[in-house]
Amino acid sequence: MNLKELKACSPHELVDVAQTMRKRIIDVMAKNGGHLASNLGSVELTLALHYVFSSPQDRLIFDVSHQCYTHKLLTDRDHARFDRIRKSDGLSGFTQPEESEHDLFFAGHAGTALSLALGMAHSRDLNQGQEHIIPIIGDASLTCGLTLEALNNIPQNLRSFLIILNDNAMSISHNVGGITTILSRLLTKPLAHRFSHALERVLATIPLYGQTFVRQKKSVEEALKGLFGSAAFFEHFGLSYVGPVDGHDVKKLVSLFKALKDQPMPVIVHLQTRKGQGLRLAEEDPVTFHGVKPFNPQTCEFLPVIEKGPAFPKVFGQHLLSMGEKYPKVVVVTPAMSLGSSLDAFFEKYPTRSFDVGIAEGHAVTFCGGLAKTGQSLVVCSIYATFLQRALDNVFHDICLQKLPVIFAIDRAGLATGDGVTHHGIYDMGFLQALPGMVICQPRNGELLIDLLESAPHWKQPVAIRYPNQITTVSTQSPHIRSLGRAEVLTHGDDLLILALGTMVDIAMCVQQSLKEQGIDATVVDPIFIKPLDTELLSNLLLNHQRIVILEEHAMSGGLGSAFCTFVAHHGFDHLQILHLALPDCFFEHGSLNDLYKKTGLTSPQVLSRIHAFFSWPAHKESQHV
Amino acid sequence: MNLKELKACSPHELVDVAQTMRKRIIDVMAKNGGHLASNLGSVELTLALHYVFSSPQDRLIFDVSHQCYTHKLLTDRDHARFDRIRKSDGLSGFTQPEESEHDLFFAGHAGTALSLALGMAHSRDLNQGQEHIIPIIGDASLTCGLTLEALNNIPQNLRSFLIILNDNAMSISHNVGGITTILSRLLTKPLAHRFSHALERVLATIPLYGQTFVRQKKSVEEALKGLFGSAAFFEHFGLSYVGPVDGHDVKKLVSLFKALKDQPMPVIVHLQTRKGQGLRLAEEDPVTFHGVKPFNPQTCEFLPVIEKGPAFPKVFGQHLLSMGEKYPKVVVVTPAMSLGSSLDAFFEKYPTRSFDVGIAEGHAVTFCGGLAKTGQSLVVCSIYATFLQRALDNVFHDICLQKLPVIFAIDRAGLATGDGVTHHGIYDMGFLQALPGMVICQPRNGELLIDLLESAPHWKQPVAIRYPNQITTVSTQSPHIRSLGRAEVLTHGDDLLILALGTMVDIAMCVQQSLKEQGIDATVVDPIFIKPLDTELLSNLLLNHQRIVILEEHAMSGGLGSAFCTFVAHHGFDHLQILHLALPDCFFEHGSLNDLYKKTGLTSPQVLSRIHAFFSWPAHKESQHV
Repeated sequence: MNLKELKACSPHELVDVAQTMRKRIIDVMAKNGGHLASNLGSVELTLALHYVFSSPQDRLIFDVSHQCYTHKLLTDRDHARFDRIRKSDGLSGFTQPEESEHDLFFAGHAGTALSLALGMAHSRDLNQGQEHIIPIIGDASLTCGLTLEALNNIPQNLRSFLIILNDNAMSISHNVGGITTILSRLLTKPLAHRFSHALERVLATIPLYGQTFVRQKKSVEEALKGLFGSAAFFEHFGLSYVGPVDGHDVKKLVSLFKALKDQPMPVIVHLQTRKGQGLRLAEEDPVTFHGVKPFNPQTCEFLPVIEKGPAFPKVFGQHLLSMGEKYPKVVVVTPAMSLGSSLDAFFEKYPTRSFDVGIAEGHAVTFCGGLAKTGQSLVVCSIYATFLQRALDNVFHDICLQKLPVIFAIDRAGLATGDGVTHHGIYDMGFLQALPGMVICQPRNGELLIDLLESAPHWKQPVAIRYPNQITTVSTQSPHIRSLGRAEVLTHGDDLLILALGTMVDIAMCVQQSLKEQGIDATVVDPIFIKPLDTELLSNLLLNHQRIVILEEHAMSGGLGSAFCTFVAHHGFDHLQILHLALPDCFFEHGSLNDLYKKTGLTSPQVLSRIHAFFSWPAHKESQHV
Repeated sequence: MNLKELKACSPHELVDVAQTMRKRIIDVMAKNGGHLASNLGSVELTLALHYVFSSPQDRLIFDVSHQCYTHKLLTDRDHARFDRIRKSDGLSGFTQPEESEHDLFFAGHAGTALSLALGMAHSRDLNQGQEHIIPIIGDASLTCGLTLEALNNIPQNLRSFLIILNDNAMSISHNVGGITTILSRLLTKPLAHRFSHALERVLATIPLYGQTFVRQKKSVEEALKGLFGSAAFFEHFGLSYVGPVDGHDVKKLVSLFKALKDQPMPVIVHLQTRKGQGLRLAEEDPVTFHGVKPFNPQTCEFLPVIEKGPAFPKVFGQHLLSMGEKYPKVVVVTPAMSLGSSLDAFFEKYPTRSFDVGIAEGHAVTFCGGLAKTGQSLVVCSIYATFLQRALDNVFHDICLQKLPVIFAIDRAGLATGDGVTHHGIYDMGFLQALPGMVICQPRNGELLIDLLESAPHWKQPVAIRYPNQITTVSTQSPHIRSLGRAEVLTHGDDLLILALGTMVDIAMCVQQSLKEQGIDATVVDPIFIKPLDTELLSNLLLNHQRIVILEEHAMSGGLGSAFCTFVAHHGFDHLQILHLALPDCFFEHGSLNDLYKKTGLTSPQVLSRIHAFFSWPAHKESQHV
């Protein structure tokens, strides 16, 4: 169904359209996995918006945009690429301007929609446009400082500006904080309990009329409710509040949106939706069904996945749990990622030492500064690399500058596979390297991750431990306390020095093996530390290595390569031939890890052939012996 | 006066103490300049806090901390170093843990106090501490997402947590946004007008009792006010609101703080203060008197300052004004820095095209993305380098990824003199360089700044133009459209290649002259662009230059040196001797620019002697000819 066909339907027919959309989404998610629950929750609201408004002239701006599947299906993307959504060469799981003119922005990080919408609205007004601006935000985005900053900047006279608040009472996990309370109060008891009692008390104090008035209370309540209930929270910001409204009643939504078109002031419509609506198990357990693996759409059972080992985040979560037991000082902070970062067990066992602050990365980091200040807590800040970008000033201002030994467990470092361009954790080191006192390291496997977690408190300074969401190995040996800044030589060879970081070590070892078979002996070094770099070891190795390969899953600028190249340039090592293989200076879409490595030239065969080409070595084994 | 002496006073005597403090602050500010108005506004509240609570056991956490002078005077710092506050070797103008155990955190960026305080409070509770936690925040910090994120995370049962809201109705400029309206409503009309009318209407509709009730309205209003006035904004977040209270009535403050000690729930006290209190002209014009130059304390006239030319921000502001006239598409966005960044003239002339979003850097940048989206506006985002650190994810997610041609005018790039360690703009390039599509450039003088501003729209991609707050030159010639990524050779010489960025070009030219007198000829290149680097020109120059000096006022990692070293390492230039002079990898305090250059080895004589030492050239002119 496309937009023209949609608009030809009667509102009544939209109920069936919603069912079709929902079925399509479930079928594809069952095969591919993806953001299931959020998309099931937003079917009707998306239909109603597209029915009443005219995209792309009217601007639908999806926050985070992991709820845009119905939108994609309606805007000419119900085709084979939808079946491969989030897969290599399939559609993006988020809005993607290169896919469609109906997708205005790449999105992926929460909380941007209101700011973007406000910018578009001002630009419209400067240019006398007539289009409607419609940001669609989740309740979780209201825990996000960026949304609140934008809220504070909405002019009271901004016209045709309709905020859709899609309230499913969840972020990825359950929501936190005061704003959540406000919203749930609106949903469950539009007129707060407290108000009711207080009013009763006040009215009763008025002599003579008091008792009668208590009887009249209901009507007073009713009249005052819009003004003084929790709705006032939004009205404080100059918004007209409408709601709560059942976000799955598509006919009601259509008449509501029609009525709210062309208002001379900004309006916020509060829709109550259910994450996972229409799929019983997802409704009952929306946390598990937020981002799903493939499942059986009939039984909702997840298909068995053969995993060759635990992923880094799992190793982190498990080890943190044991550190929690060993060290009562350990506390952990996450900005709404307790599940993704495998903190659930720690949260359950040590609730008073666990802090989920909501989608509030800046606060998460600064809050860690406060926790760490007296030295009575050993603070672990668990955060995705891509989201740490939101808290870089906090890392500088509230951690490094204060010389506080906070341990940053930087999850999802490297390429993001299904989530794609907004989620790659490949820029963080550029800024972190510039900060005095910051330690930056990355383990190549689970054992080393555990070693680094156990070692970090010994260094007594801020430490960033980066690791990807990839399968790894763990050992049963007890952890080994590492020296700060000490690299490791994994193989010795005279022909070539390969420096490989984290995920790239396996590839380096594979390349080393192939080279060996070709008669070329490589020294493979895992630097482990990007800052401080093991310049002593490197200086020694450079005495008898002139061919260098650097391998890293980070942007070309700012990572291991920059650190190494700056080091050798500063120290005047001569006759070096340096092949720096990192992520090219452009944006990468989603896809399987292997496809992304292929696109960026980082698979072992590609690395091997790039080495051959760069050093002008013949490509074939045989030729080595000629 | 120290804390012991203070506590020995009667509350009545504090009135005189306040006058003494105020006089001391005015006298020193008159000589040195500094954050005058904010400090005059916080004398009484600081006295009362120190009188009632016991620092450092009780934790006073000053937000931004440009209001901490009374605190410094009371905590054993009323000595010669206070007379030299913000000067080299004088006290810091902000809280500085190395100065005193009463200063808990380095501060300088707004909005961190609440997050830090919340962290300290949780740490206290985990460790069964009894101390009071007292964040002191300004009203402007409430426009800041970080504060709002923290506000959303305050547990309703957090004990002994007293937020002091020092409301002077100002940020540096006048405040913006919905929260400001809430606060001013609280100050001027605790019971909002709208409430009053609505209540009247509602009550009047009730048959029989209606008219009587309108007469009773006053008492109902009074009783309801705490519940439903703007105070409800804070109560939504689970805080108990007390206020507004005259923040200059020190006796009242003492009894209030005593009463609010040891509450079992978090409390916010709303103090109404006047920026510049006690100095008539500062009270009347707190914007001008926010950060002052030296003045005559009797007349309040600023002492004449001989300026050798306009500073870069002034050149920017003036040229932007002319661009505003020439291009009706130009719009400008600032996070509360319209004055500092010389945007006042543009704001006055083009109010609809000017946006001050408050202390909300993330929103400022994302908002620019929305403004730029349709291409109908040419968007200039004016932001200090140090504050851009708060919006790096927004630059990535909402500008670069969207390929939007926003022009970032990055003010205060380089060392920050009086403001010191929190304000140096010396880390930004590390992150920006890693972002695909980002242009980074820095003009060495006013003419070039104008050229870059005029040229940037031609490049049709995101552009960061960095410049310092230093005196420069301008020419009367019309601007010259620059080619993207084209460097400039300023002098030709065979012995040495000096690459100098921005502020360092003058120093390079001076060094070049001295070297020339010693018979050493240097090529001086201003790369102008850090990204893209002019690799073509550099490759040519490297054919006959092996001695290289890089000069930049940026952290050692992530700036021009990193870009250059990576380039030469990648391209295998041999036999290079590279002397990279940048800011060492540690934190620097405040001081005059010359003193900071001295400390970091960047004055011309130091650069000259470091060159001599590095290349093993004899230091004296005569020796060259031996």
